[in-house]
Amino acid sequence: MVERLVVVGGDAAGMSAASRARRLRGPGELEIVAFERGRYSSYSACGVPYWVGGDVDGPQGLVARSPEEHRKRGIDLRMGTEVTTIDLDRGRVLARDLAEGTERWTGFDKLVVATGAVPVRPPLPGIDAAGVHGVQTLEDGQRLLDTLSRTEGDRAVVVGSGYIGVEMAEALVKRGYRVTLVDQAEQPMSTLDPDMGELVRTAMEDMGITTAMGRRVTEIRTDASGRATAVCTQEEEYPADVVVLGMGVRPGTALAEAAGLPLGEYGGILTDQSMRVRGQEAVWAGGDCVEVLDLVSLRHRHIPLGTHANKHGQVIGANVAGGYATFPGVVGTAVSKVCDLEIARTGLLEREAAEAGLRVVTATVESTSRAGYFPGSSPMHVKLLAEHRTGRLLGAQIVGREGAGKRVDIAAVALTAGMTVEGMTSLDLGYAPPFSPVWDPVLVAARKAAAAVAAAVG
Amino acid sequence: MVERLVVVGGDAAGMSAASRARRLRGPGELEIVAFERGRYSSYSACGVPYWVGGDVDGPQGLVARSPEEHRKRGIDLRMGTEVTTIDLDRGRVLARDLAEGTERWTGFDKLVVATGAVPVRPPLPGIDAAGVHGVQTLEDGQRLLDTLSRTEGDRAVVVGSGYIGVEMAEALVKRGYRVTLVDQAEQPMSTLDPDMGELVRTAMEDMGITTAMGRRVTEIRTDASGRATAVCTQEEEYPADVVVLGMGVRPGTALAEAAGLPLGEYGGILTDQSMRVRGQEAVWAGGDCVEVLDLVSLRHRHIPLGTHANKHGQVIGANVAGGYATFPGVVGTAVSKVCDLEIARTGLLEREAAEAGLRVVTATVESTSRAGYFPGSSPMHVKLLAEHRTGRLLGAQIVGREGAGKRVDIAAVALTAGMTVEGMTSLDLGYAPPFSPVWDPVLVAARKAAAAVAAAVG
Repeated sequence: MVERLVVVGGDAAGMSAASRARRLRGPGELEIVAFERGRYSSYSACGVPYWVGGDVDGPQGLVARSPEEHRKRGIDLRMGTEVTTIDLDRGRVLARDLAEGTERWTGFDKLVVATGAVPVRPPLPGIDAAGVHGVQTLEDGQRLLDTLSRTEGDRAVVVGSGYIGVEMAEALVKRGYRVTLVDQAEQPMSTLDPDMGELVRTAMEDMGITTAMGRRVTEIRTDASGRATAVCTQEEEYPADVVVLGMGVRPGTALAEAAGLPLGEYGGILTDQSMRVRGQEAVWAGGDCVEVLDLVSLRHRHIPLGTHANKHGQVIGANVAGGYATFPGVVGTAVSKVCDLEIARTGLLEREAAEAGLRVVTATVESTSRAGYFPGSSPMHVKLLAEHRTGRLLGAQIVGREGAGKRVDIAAVALTAGMTVEGMTSLDLGYAPPFSPVWDPVLVAARKAAAAVAAAVG
Repeated sequence: MVERLVVVGGDAAGMSAASRARRLRGPGELEIVAFERGRYSSYSACGVPYWVGGDVDGPQGLVARSPEEHRKRGIDLRMGTEVTTIDLDRGRVLARDLAEGTERWTGFDKLVVATGAVPVRPPLPGIDAAGVHGVQTLEDGQRLLDTLSRTEGDRAVVVGSGYIGVEMAEALVKRGYRVTLVDQAEQPMSTLDPDMGELVRTAMEDMGITTAMGRRVTEIRTDASGRATAVCTQEEEYPADVVVLGMGVRPGTALAEAAGLPLGEYGGILTDQSMRVRGQEAVWAGGDCVEVLDLVSLRHRHIPLGTHANKHGQVIGANVAGGYATFPGVVGTAVSKVCDLEIARTGLLEREAAEAGLRVVTATVESTSRAGYFPGSSPMHVKLLAEHRTGRLLGAQIVGREGAGKRVDIAAVALTAGMTVEGMTSLDLGYAPPFSPVWDPVLVAARKAAAAVAAAVG
């Protein structure tokens, strides 16, 4: 008998799962139906800021696999079709064709929920006005580009200073805008400790980006035509010809919640390490709608990232097809850039370690990306967090220029392996003058952290 | 009573040891006398190719700490002074002032042997002719630059295709020479497997470098004035206005051997993990004159690299000063470049694994350094070696362009932690379009290697 797999959501997690399952089981064994409410499948949302900034072509350039390609591989992908109900008892989903307005039930033997994330939108006056844009989807990117092409002024205000916020600041600078970044946080990049975030703030100011930190947005002012003209905070008002919102996302779990699937502290679906939804026999979930296990704090977190979504999809696909695969969890690695400034973190921040009840010792060093005498050598700051008394690495943060960001992978692997900062001091890392000083900056930081751990005990 | 530490060799290992010991114990406790036969202390020999190529200023730019700076810190560093005898029984060394020709005994309580490496020079006709240059020391670099400034032709032949050979090929290309690389190996970079070395050969040919592989040099032909004019092999003759030798080095252990210190299979001094010479109470050794434990094969190897020498020095300094520190060993990481081609390896090659009696499964992938749609994304090849039946990572090799080389650190840390390639597939590595495809090339290789391990068992 042919089983039917239904996939809700046609982006990274859902379509990776469908594709992997299809490779492992042919259409004679497994029918695969996937629903996507938007116009694009399997696309790189992470690429939107670079599309807006003119670095890459879009929207098609950001599509890894089109609906037609999926269909050719035997996946019945229905675009513009939104699942509105999951009926677990009867094993079926209700889907609405958004163009025609018709609704239809489709039964499933196995279900994958990959409903992604939804942008955070505080209910501020003017937040839905013309000229105010999110940048979560390719449709969002296209709408923003349409606005930019029609906009005469050159003042852009970005609200929110996380990854998307700083990347959009870069994109708008590249398009010639005078950019102001507004956030209620005191430093940009709240995914970094404040001392490292301050380095980012200073660097952005040096790039000509105005950083209005510690400012809570109260209203987006509009003109008579309903078009955004300024972003208002309690303290100040920032004139804006265009407003971009990068205020974070939360798990898109309205469907899952209505169906009774278990949600965690951050609102994400809870799964086991096979990405099977807890308490369910034949339902899997992955991507931005789930919570993941943080292998450092051993707590669940919501970390919406394309790289996790793809891994989830692979694991789900194997398990749906009757094989086995495991997603053990994450260590919280992320890397980003603003113009030539590279920003990376992995593991826990000081605040997150405290929340997890862990005591930390920290060490921050300034070193260089290459041998000091080599052309293009640039300063980079590395901060390591180690556990008090054990020296176990708990986190790393890096702010620097070219060659800085991906060094975070060294710490990511060390975290996964449970290494101590003392153990890291003898790591055999690649050295040659164009690549690193004779002591890699991560090793310099490890030495300082190991000394700090010893001093904290003594 | 004031103890006296004598250090033989004033480069990375010796002077790192002296400096660390001085930081831990003041002149009232420890007298430090160091002997260096050359003109430069604590310099970056790895920088010589970049000095010759015009990327960096030399020789002073490559000196990390001058003799005067060492002396200011309370280290009695005697330049131009060569230790000719180590008398372990009486705890003294005989040192000759090379300028004055005088010899003098100096007693020691503790001894550090850091005599470096000596270049391999097969006894070929013409190998010592004018116009034939090694590039091991700053003096060598200066002599080569003097020759280049006097040379009229533009034909350079580099003999030897290891790191130094390919880096010198780049340097000479940058100076406008037509470069031929000659080696008896079939591919350049014998520190890579042949398939990966072949990628390097092709790329070098594309850069306009002639690679004459599988050619054993029989003679360096000279003109009537005794000046080199061609490099001869059995098959062909390569006209040369300048010849650079990069034929590898061996441990510089004539002194140590004469003193009866234990040497290993590769001629390097054998130490324990505190870098104390085996069988000796008060003698330490480090840098290019020692063998190191390979943590993957659990055999000793000779790996002359500045980064190891610096670590050895730190460990020796701490132990000499009465503290404790450990150099656990290496995993065999090395990174290099030829123009924009980045070349990296860590762990074992196929040949080395076979020599160690290990059975391997391999996987090679071609991926890109950044998201495929991102500007500057360039192809990179990653090869992983895993142990048959266990999947334990045994080695990694990378050949690519910008952003490829330092990715080897991911594998270096994974090797240190004893990870399997299956375990590596879920590593939480930094992802953003400017930094990596959504699946980092190392993860793609790990997935293929894990599948190959499973298939090899089945």
